[in-house]
Amino acid sequence: MPNLDKVLASLDDDRQGALDRLFELLRFRSISTDPAFAPDCAAAADWLVGQLQSLGFEASSRKTAGHPMVVAKAKAARADAPHVLFYGHYDVQPVDPLNLWETDPFAPHMAEAETGRKIVARGAADDKGQLMTFVEACRAFRANGGLPCNVTILFEGEEESGSTSLPAFIAENARDLKADLMLVCDTNMWDRETPLITCMLRGLVLEEVVIKGASRDLHSGMFGGPAVNPIHVLSRVIAGLHDETGRVTLPDFYEGVPELPEDIKEQWAALKFDPKAFLGEVGLADPAGEADYSVLEQIWARPTCDVNGIVGGYTGQGSKTVLPAQASAKFSFRLVGKQNPQAIAESFRAYVKSRLPDDCEAEFISHGASPALSLSFRSEAILRASRALEAEWGKPAVLAASGGSIPVVGLFKRELKMDSLMVGFGLDDDRIHSPNEKYELSSFRKGARSWARILDALAK
Amino acid sequence: MPNLDKVLASLDDDRQGALDRLFELLRFRSISTDPAFAPDCAAAADWLVGQLQSLGFEASSRKTAGHPMVVAKAKAARADAPHVLFYGHYDVQPVDPLNLWETDPFAPHMAEAETGRKIVARGAADDKGQLMTFVEACRAFRANGGLPCNVTILFEGEEESGSTSLPAFIAENARDLKADLMLVCDTNMWDRETPLITCMLRGLVLEEVVIKGASRDLHSGMFGGPAVNPIHVLSRVIAGLHDETGRVTLPDFYEGVPELPEDIKEQWAALKFDPKAFLGEVGLADPAGEADYSVLEQIWARPTCDVNGIVGGYTGQGSKTVLPAQASAKFSFRLVGKQNPQAIAESFRAYVKSRLPDDCEAEFISHGASPALSLSFRSEAILRASRALEAEWGKPAVLAASGGSIPVVGLFKRELKMDSLMVGFGLDDDRIHSPNEKYELSSFRKGARSWARILDALAK
Repeated sequence: MPNLDKVLASLDDDRQGALDRLFELLRFRSISTDPAFAPDCAAAADWLVGQLQSLGFEASSRKTAGHPMVVAKAKAARADAPHVLFYGHYDVQPVDPLNLWETDPFAPHMAEAETGRKIVARGAADDKGQLMTFVEACRAFRANGGLPCNVTILFEGEEESGSTSLPAFIAENARDLKADLMLVCDTNMWDRETPLITCMLRGLVLEEVVIKGASRDLHSGMFGGPAVNPIHVLSRVIAGLHDETGRVTLPDFYEGVPELPEDIKEQWAALKFDPKAFLGEVGLADPAGEADYSVLEQIWARPTCDVNGIVGGYTGQGSKTVLPAQASAKFSFRLVGKQNPQAIAESFRAYVKSRLPDDCEAEFISHGASPALSLSFRSEAILRASRALEAEWGKPAVLAASGGSIPVVGLFKRELKMDSLMVGFGLDDDRIHSPNEKYELSSFRKGARSWARILDALAK
Repeated sequence: MPNLDKVLASLDDDRQGALDRLFELLRFRSISTDPAFAPDCAAAADWLVGQLQSLGFEASSRKTAGHPMVVAKAKAARADAPHVLFYGHYDVQPVDPLNLWETDPFAPHMAEAETGRKIVARGAADDKGQLMTFVEACRAFRANGGLPCNVTILFEGEEESGSTSLPAFIAENARDLKADLMLVCDTNMWDRETPLITCMLRGLVLEEVVIKGASRDLHSGMFGGPAVNPIHVLSRVIAGLHDETGRVTLPDFYEGVPELPEDIKEQWAALKFDPKAFLGEVGLADPAGEADYSVLEQIWARPTCDVNGIVGGYTGQGSKTVLPAQASAKFSFRLVGKQNPQAIAESFRAYVKSRLPDDCEAEFISHGASPALSLSFRSEAILRASRALEAEWGKPAVLAASGGSIPVVGLFKRELKMDSLMVGFGLDDDRIHSPNEKYELSSFRKGARSWARILDALAK
């Protein structure tokens, strides 16, 4: 087994070298959404291939219909070691509005702040800085007896432009990419000092409903009264979806929703999270979700139903006395635990139909359905990563969840049945996708040390 | 007093002359909405002035910012006769799509049909044919001892393009236009054989509501659950506006709503009106209004509340997981009897506010408020007109109502405190505003005789 202390010492000794290499990567203008930057994307991929080859990886840049994928593989020093797949992306967001940047987004530099030194550049946090923490950890193992795990690396070049080529690439290279566990480094810490593991991602069911009444728009003077109004019907459908305590009323909606383990509940309650400040930042004050759950629980661990859009009748300036022939709304359900997306879509459709007067019809359009994703809070991977992070940061890792989704995690779960360990060192104030994006120097340095510890812990 | 029988005989003797004169008027391309036809509008007005002068009226074409008004006045043969103001309009709708006309819209001609002869031209029914019924009645009185009533005539040239100049013109010429009763001939018969007096027009309150939650649109992954959703709030507002029987729930909403007199109720029930056919024509089957009232009552004599438009969040293709910062809807209330538009707007606003969670605000925009207009079913004007129409058509006139509004009627009520007697000879199948507009020859002939009888009856 490689000696972890030596590996960590190597990382400390080569701090400047690591920073120089990250700056090299940050100089590539790898904006994936703009075809003008395709050569920059390809060059960034080639640079990564060179780096990984120099670390003993069998690495190549693989063509796709879009930007290339970087795939690299290296064996562990020990034959029976576990196999991890590390995912990251080398492409970045566009830099507009350029005039809001204080410096050239592709000329990385160090900035000083009260809270420490920062690496400023487009992609510093999202995702070049994050992915290089893992590469640097591999480099340190390579210099100290070899990798503790079998490692496959996949760096994508289209994450910021819809990952268009990824599903086909995964399907075509399933055998090549399959591993025991996926490591994803595209997430944040709880705060500057507290590491975090994202254990759960909510799933999503997207349903659109069009409610149709009369065969054409009607004059409300001629027909107002006897003619059914689809906006009224749709409003009653929406109003009936929640009870007074904020619970969703669909039959069997909560089937498969787990209660949070007591220790996790306690950890979340002990976090310095101020619901008033969280809501206050967007002009709100009162939690509107299920009355029996805290705001963090509502976002991280509870399912929801929301209308994301509604339209019907006349919506221009002034007024028009029309009774519209139809009205429509887009619904989204965030799912947790073992909630079944298909069952929920069906329950929703049955509910809508049960609320229709005989004179109305409903048309349903699905815009997608995916289950929640989670690693058990008690899983070996989480327990080991948790201990490794605590050793590095001196604080227990928050075992957290995310209200949103990370498409690549769902994709690998679906296609390759792989669970993901989501650990990242970004901070909420990194301004990803915005001008003056930054990555904390401490995130970069301790991030690399964290991956060294995690790889070591996973292999034990 | 002029002898009514002689007047009617004159009308019969001069049938061809009357038709020739109507054809002359129909040849003017008096499309008010298109400035290219301004000279045609002015020429039509001048022609009417000439006609009225030849009948002894003091008549003139009055300039406005838009098309001219024709104002004409003539004294009754008897000094103590009542004073009526007849309103009509000489402008017409555009003729597009021209290719759907079987003949030139401004080359009037007679067409034969199973149901009788028809006058085909743009404006035949709306409103040139209708207004000429009154002019011809005046002509016949002129030839037989003079008018039974003092008569003021107002022919507008902008009815089809918003009556832009009318409010100022009425205000400026109030003394000139004021009479005991206004006669409006822009309405229809019940059917080919049954005359109809429109005794009530529903009023209208137009309110727009914008419900505002968070200070910006939110991501439903980040905020779904704790953040209030204005679409949900708006839907609950709408859903609560009606109870299960279709009654509007606003406090005091039904204050001032009269119950229909029993004889009128019976007359309406006896009409050949098929609710299934009425709704079936637009793809509906079940009356959606107040359960205790017939479809005719729901449209003619009951107040309503309808949402005419709603919009919030993402309404494009596909889906977007947004929690919108706001949602808005346009509401219209149709009023009857003595319902107070201001009180209803206030009751509505108070209701909406009472339904708002603390985290939401409502912005209200008024798009207008006007009371219902009615002549009592028992008023002298209606009783006399009713007898006159029955004498002409051999059937009692239907004492009806209209679910919509006729702006000019409200304007004269507001500005000059004048009630309107609404009698017209159009039919529902006259295709006004559409290609191949027609007016029944029987409507034209018996319409003129009807006005002779009504003027005679009003003067007795």
